[in-house]
Amino acid sequence: MTQVAPAPTTQPDLPAYTPLHRPRLIAPGPVEVDPRVLLELAQPQMHHRAQAGIEKLMEARAKLTALLGDPYDAVITTSSGTGAFEGALVSTTPVGAKVVNAQAGKFSERWGEMAARLGYDTHRVARPWGALLDADEIAGACRDAHTLTITHSETSTGALHDLEAITRAAKAANPDLIVIADCITSYGVAELRPAAWGVDVIVSGSQKGTATPPGLGFVLFSPEVQARMIRDTPRGFYLDLTRELAGQKAGNTPQTPAINLMYALSAALDRLLGVPLEVLWAEQRRKTDALIAAGTALGAPAWATRTSPAVAVLTPPPGLTGRAVAGALAGMGQRALPGQAPHEDSVFRVSTMGYSDRYDALGIAGILEDAFASLGVPFTRGVAVAAAWAALA
Amino acid sequence: MTQVAPAPTTQPDLPAYTPLHRPRLIAPGPVEVDPRVLLELAQPQMHHRAQAGIEKLMEARAKLTALLGDPYDAVITTSSGTGAFEGALVSTTPVGAKVVNAQAGKFSERWGEMAARLGYDTHRVARPWGALLDADEIAGACRDAHTLTITHSETSTGALHDLEAITRAAKAANPDLIVIADCITSYGVAELRPAAWGVDVIVSGSQKGTATPPGLGFVLFSPEVQARMIRDTPRGFYLDLTRELAGQKAGNTPQTPAINLMYALSAALDRLLGVPLEVLWAEQRRKTDALIAAGTALGAPAWATRTSPAVAVLTPPPGLTGRAVAGALAGMGQRALPGQAPHEDSVFRVSTMGYSDRYDALGIAGILEDAFASLGVPFTRGVAVAAAWAALA
Repeated sequence: MTQVAPAPTTQPDLPAYTPLHRPRLIAPGPVEVDPRVLLELAQPQMHHRAQAGIEKLMEARAKLTALLGDPYDAVITTSSGTGAFEGALVSTTPVGAKVVNAQAGKFSERWGEMAARLGYDTHRVARPWGALLDADEIAGACRDAHTLTITHSETSTGALHDLEAITRAAKAANPDLIVIADCITSYGVAELRPAAWGVDVIVSGSQKGTATPPGLGFVLFSPEVQARMIRDTPRGFYLDLTRELAGQKAGNTPQTPAINLMYALSAALDRLLGVPLEVLWAEQRRKTDALIAAGTALGAPAWATRTSPAVAVLTPPPGLTGRAVAGALAGMGQRALPGQAPHEDSVFRVSTMGYSDRYDALGIAGILEDAFASLGVPFTRGVAVAAAWAALA
Repeated sequence: MTQVAPAPTTQPDLPAYTPLHRPRLIAPGPVEVDPRVLLELAQPQMHHRAQAGIEKLMEARAKLTALLGDPYDAVITTSSGTGAFEGALVSTTPVGAKVVNAQAGKFSERWGEMAARLGYDTHRVARPWGALLDADEIAGACRDAHTLTITHSETSTGALHDLEAITRAAKAANPDLIVIADCITSYGVAELRPAAWGVDVIVSGSQKGTATPPGLGFVLFSPEVQARMIRDTPRGFYLDLTRELAGQKAGNTPQTPAINLMYALSAALDRLLGVPLEVLWAEQRRKTDALIAAGTALGAPAWATRTSPAVAVLTPPPGLTGRAVAGALAGMGQRALPGQAPHEDSVFRVSTMGYSDRYDALGIAGILEDAFASLGVPFTRGVAVAAAWAALA
């Protein structure tokens, strides 16, 4: 039932110094980080039991709630997003309960693998990579389920699944269903209205939309789901978020947190919260639309039909592979990514999720033109730049 | 004879956090600095008398010579470029000697003001701001002079004066002439061949082409001029570069240097020296040509006819002032500059001299379009972006 993890796709290292290129992270995480945020990490070592450390935790949690826009309670885990997701699952779902796993890509597949490994009665509702999840199909499977795991923005395919429609349909079929949404690359990036849509638990990680270094996971629980959380789950001690949530509400982390990252997170959230969420979402949409427009102009359209604003997952023209494009970009000091196994060569992935603005997105269109030219792809110089700029109007 | 310095042109501060814009320094100094260079500053405090500090001085001096391309000996001053220029003047030119000051802008005027204040027999050969210096006129004035001060790239007007032609003409008229060139924004930026052209002393500063924070000046002396340097000049103690050169050749700074900046400088020079100088100069030329092309497309052509690759000094269309453009850019988090007094409103100034590449130059074209649109200037969206990208081909 469990799968062997594929070997990670290695990437050539960036040159230490590139006289003609400023190296950029243009991958869908880790992303560029505001240098002012990085400086937060390098302060005299903080202590999480000091008053300032306690206040920083409370401050960061409040800002995470503000970035969601609904009064959910945030737990910050010292883990990747996968750890946060496991905590969400084991802390809401009793051992042996039926879990429906909606999957159509690498990350949604991971949640099915996780649920099966942990001994849940796991029912996969699968669609091919790049395709969209079907709300009715999922709702049908959820009728007698305890929990639905679903991925909002599928980073491996660039699809933005219709979390609203799927959640509404599944909840209509089963009002007691707990919906845990992987919003790792949609939180702070795509329109997300969990209270209105009925999503109970939101999971994310620090190195995506919050433009913070990796190392923190976020789980935001609705007021309603908190009454149903599992106490003393036998499937987790470190990731027992029932205990963690109670502690963090009182300004206390039962475990030692990555306190430096929490200071960085708080500073990063200040920047994001400087505009209404709708403005943030719309600008991120435009930036990714610019990348997709640039790719399309070069004969590399988006893989997905309903595209995520987090990442442009582009299918290279015939004769070119995802790894070849990512390799050419790396040679220019630009860290993008090929597809994820087994689709390394089907696509390449470019993102502006981090500390980068619309003019950086325009610059990436130029980068793509130069990379494609170096790979011998025929096109009229300027088409990608013009298309990107038009998308940014 | 001395002039009262005009009040500095104040600029609105950048917003602390700009959710939709990544703040950029796009002014002609200080410039963007590679974060890896900034990290050099923050190491455990170095000591300039420790072996590592001595080696860092020698290393940085050798790299400064490599960036020049000719075997001149470098002195690093802990001062701005103005301090370095004063040191060059008082250490090569006896009190009371005739100094010809070629001027056609703010910075070349400053060297005339400096020479007069220090009691030199100062003869100004002036051309209007934005115009080009005339080689024959300067050569005529130099026949009986000891020293010529000249500015290669005039940062206030964006003119690149023909240092080669002027130096050759002046030296033909007076083979004993010492030529001190202000290369503050041309060193590491524009083609510069001092040995072939006959330039004796090159002066620059850290916050320009070397993309290092401000605080260091550079003076590079030809082998020939070193035999003529003044000992124990009564016009300077701190800026006595005769003593400083002798000390630094032996790995010793008579004064306490800004050693942290020297570590940063050495790292910054590594990046620049990763390609041949001709490649560095050509790329910087293209980047600035892209900014000029963008401005021209928006009705804001370059002020100068022979443009410097260091900075685009652009004349806004009728009805718009340099300060209005710089103010609109500052409101977007982008630090450019208006003109220098008394030409604050005649021009605005944009540069890619620092840690930025061709894709940043493309992004600046987009920034200029958005700024001009916000100021109500009519233009067809995309013209500046397309013009900049064409210049980067």
